[in-house]
Amino acid sequence: MSIPPSRLTGSVRIVGAGLLGASIGLALRANDVDVILADASPAQLKLAVDYGAGRTEADGDRPSLVIVSVPPDVTANIIEAELGRFPSAVVTDVASVKLEPYLTLLNRGVDLTRYIGSHPLAGRERGGAISARADLFLGRPWVICRDEETPPEALALVEDLALDLGASPIEMTPDEHDRSVGLVSHVPQLVASVLAKQLVHAPDSAVRLTGQGLRDTVRIASSAPELWVQILASNAAPVVDVLDAFAADLARVTDALRGPDAPGARRTIANTIAAGNSGVARLPGKHGQDRRYESIVVMVDDTPGQLGKLLTELGDIGVNMEDLRLEHSPGAQIGLAEIAVLPEVQQRAIDDLEARGWRIAST
Amino acid sequence: MSIPPSRLTGSVRIVGAGLLGASIGLALRANDVDVILADASPAQLKLAVDYGAGRTEADGDRPSLVIVSVPPDVTANIIEAELGRFPSAVVTDVASVKLEPYLTLLNRGVDLTRYIGSHPLAGRERGGAISARADLFLGRPWVICRDEETPPEALALVEDLALDLGASPIEMTPDEHDRSVGLVSHVPQLVASVLAKQLVHAPDSAVRLTGQGLRDTVRIASSAPELWVQILASNAAPVVDVLDAFAADLARVTDALRGPDAPGARRTIANTIAAGNSGVARLPGKHGQDRRYESIVVMVDDTPGQLGKLLTELGDIGVNMEDLRLEHSPGAQIGLAEIAVLPEVQQRAIDDLEARGWRIAST
Repeated sequence: MSIPPSRLTGSVRIVGAGLLGASIGLALRANDVDVILADASPAQLKLAVDYGAGRTEADGDRPSLVIVSVPPDVTANIIEAELGRFPSAVVTDVASVKLEPYLTLLNRGVDLTRYIGSHPLAGRERGGAISARADLFLGRPWVICRDEETPPEALALVEDLALDLGASPIEMTPDEHDRSVGLVSHVPQLVASVLAKQLVHAPDSAVRLTGQGLRDTVRIASSAPELWVQILASNAAPVVDVLDAFAADLARVTDALRGPDAPGARRTIANTIAAGNSGVARLPGKHGQDRRYESIVVMVDDTPGQLGKLLTELGDIGVNMEDLRLEHSPGAQIGLAEIAVLPEVQQRAIDDLEARGWRIAST
Repeated sequence: MSIPPSRLTGSVRIVGAGLLGASIGLALRANDVDVILADASPAQLKLAVDYGAGRTEADGDRPSLVIVSVPPDVTANIIEAELGRFPSAVVTDVASVKLEPYLTLLNRGVDLTRYIGSHPLAGRERGGAISARADLFLGRPWVICRDEETPPEALALVEDLALDLGASPIEMTPDEHDRSVGLVSHVPQLVASVLAKQLVHAPDSAVRLTGQGLRDTVRIASSAPELWVQILASNAAPVVDVLDAFAADLARVTDALRGPDAPGARRTIANTIAAGNSGVARLPGKHGQDRRYESIVVMVDDTPGQLGKLLTELGDIGVNMEDLRLEHSPGAQIGLAEIAVLPEVQQRAIDDLEARGWRIAST
């Protein structure tokens, strides 16, 4: 990471050293911020510290900012506890739902002047400190839910956090946030899960025909049930609204398919696919590809040690591999290793690999 | 591409020089097969020839194999015409639906002895010769629909085609094929389209929060409406069966979300997400775990050559790596290599790697 020096002053305390907490810690440590980690699980805490995501707490720690990154069902309790324990700190959280914890704390009469809810739109289908990465927030939106009573210095601190991590701060009300993520995150999660569920009892021969299309469509369906039950239940009303609209559209096109030669049926089907085109066209940014890197696809014989040989030789020619995807195709005699490299070394890497006898499938 | 010399003898004629036709042509030309291209569109034909996917037809051409790769609604007509025009050729097609063209030809009384339907499970969301690539079929399944009357030499010819292109031939009945692709291809297409449709009228601020999860889930929704109306309408009955099951499951979990604190509601939600996990786990190959394999996660220093060293040592200790995912975390001092191995070698691989000084993060 080569982000400018931190805007944050003072120590940052992170409660919950899972994927988000440990990733925030890694990124802040790279900026030389003093990061104090806490976690209910000693094993998770130790792993995050070993990763370099921060240090354990010590007597006299006085964080200027506390980041609560714990599961949704305990978020409100931990926010309340941290506000009480560190009376001069600003407290934020990174939970995926913003209205429910806010209302819970309000109903309890907690003074929320120093609390600002936030939500970095970043994540992975696998959780835990073990999946943490310092670049998790790079270029991602980071929603900040201020209200009229939020002191400007407190707001500035959370904005600095987002900027420090390379994210883009966006202000929203909790309600606006929850409706938005219901549409772009929670409903897609559930749709992917229900689609993947249809595969559970499918014949092996059918599953064997799966291509990249289905694989991408259901990728997020491998997310953890415990976490998602909490998220979906906390944001049930906005999610149900979108699901009802989805179900009505799906019923319409299914009915068209019950009589595909009836008048108007094909038009309904075509309109649905075309509307899907329009929806995809609205999505910001890259489509899968990481545009910082170029890829090289190398054919690798499906024998032990061949991939190791390739990667060793990449090291020999001084090419740093930024990412690697292996296409292992049972039945095929060759596999494909897709290697991401910086654009400026791509051509040289191809030339050197070909000179050493490697076959480049495509770039 | 440097695949072994072609198994095919004689010329191959490809009718329809779109994505699939031109990709087949490119791959066969790389193997020095004489490829004759035809297309109803002179512009598309010229583009495919310019690409190096084959030559235009000439008087006296006598292809031993004809590959029909035209839109679904004209597939049956072209198959019939080609069978009549080249009385000694084997004719195959690559359409996504197999029962309808077969029944159409049967009902017309066409002699189908020399016809073998086939379907390479390969494609891209972009069509046309301009998107063609010789490695499109590499490692992909290629379904071949023979029947009792298919002469063995004819079957061998289509199998040779699949093998020539690096694909894995799989025999299926047309009905079995259509039900399978309904589940793993056609329904996911429609579900992705209906999901993407929900974005059409969403506020900009919501769409801006989109992450890789939604982007992957709706990626295939950018496919062409004209083509997909034909595919879906030709395979309507199997698609409707899966859509009905999908809609019932979705309605169940939506109802649970209408009252997330009612008895059993959270269990229904959790079961849905967990079933989605199981569905994803059945998918072959990368992403989603393949349950035939166990995984070993090894910590790798983030320096060039370390991963190569690991994989070389795996070869040294005789462990075959079935799949590999690399977690490259800029900012962290270590990366994670997730290696899939057969269950029976997992423990020995862990022991041997640890004895050689590698740190195992988890299994």
